[in-house]
Amino acid sequence: MRHTISVLVENEFGVLARVAGLFSGRGFNIDSLSVAETQDPTVSLMTIVTRGDDQIIEQIIKQLHKLVNVLKVTDLQEGEYINRELILAKVNATEQTKPEILRLVDIFRGKIVDVSPKTYTIEITGGEEKIRALLDLLRPLGVKEFVRTGKVAMPRGLQGAPA
Amino acid sequence: MRHTISVLVENEFGVLARVAGLFSGRGFNIDSLSVAETQDPTVSLMTIVTRGDDQIIEQIIKQLHKLVNVLKVTDLQEGEYINRELILAKVNATEQTKPEILRLVDIFRGKIVDVSPKTYTIEITGGEEKIRALLDLLRPLGVKEFVRTGKVAMPRGLQGAPA
Repeated sequence: MRHTISVLVENEFGVLARVAGLFSGRGFNIDSLSVAETQDPTVSLMTIVTRGDDQIIEQIIKQLHKLVNVLKVTDLQEGEYINRELILAKVNATEQTKPEILRLVDIFRGKIVDVSPKTYTIEITGGEEKIRALLDLLRPLGVKEFVRTGKVAMPRGLQGAPA
Repeated sequence: MRHTISVLVENEFGVLARVAGLFSGRGFNIDSLSVAETQDPTVSLMTIVTRGDDQIIEQIIKQLHKLVNVLKVTDLQEGEYINRELILAKVNATEQTKPEILRLVDIFRGKIVDVSPKTYTIEITGGEEKIRALLDLLRPLGVKEFVRTGKVAMPRGLQGAPA
């Protein structure tokens, strides 16, 4: 089962290595992870997407709580949060592919962020399904470079969460 | 000095912990890191933003090259790449703040992605300067929750890079 876990941490050396080590030590791959400062520059928020048995994830969450520098751990439940990620894709732009790239950018409410004689670089944001659909559509056009941020997530509405 | 480093890795247990450990072992904080699968699900691309002395960064890059499972390391030079990140911010929405939030979303070409009786959740993407400017403008309105993906980057135009 897919899990999205938010971990609020103090910005100290080695926190990321210890958190990542907790997962790998138990043989769990991290599908994606993003970590960056919050509004308070002494505190960072990690968003981790992983797959695994519920019980073992529960254990990992308990162990995360015990780590020094970990302030808060939230296991975000499917459907109750907004999730988004950002991708940049550099696509082959030929006379044949240009109209289709522009249509996709329009449909997916994306942006063209760089142009060269032979490429368009596009920026698109969305949830998991949307990004997957887009990638399936872009692939036949020839994607030369591709980078994604991994998912970030936030509870809907008034529910509490890492600030 | 600020450095943005792309690291292409094989998806094996513990790669992230080892990469993060290289930085923390030398007393370098990671300002942001994002890692997610590429188009090839056996390979992931990390984007790491760090600050530090050029010579020591050079050493770290050499050591990254030596790690098992590391396929490619690119030190992206200022000005020669596109960089973007995504933020989600849940802002207090009162009769007083709503018009200003909507104006900011419009100016920054963002989106409102969730609404509750007392909050608007907005999604905005941009480079470092834009995100910093936005945060300065949002703060006085009352930001209840905030998450950012950390920067992802891609060389401009036809220059090569991790695919």
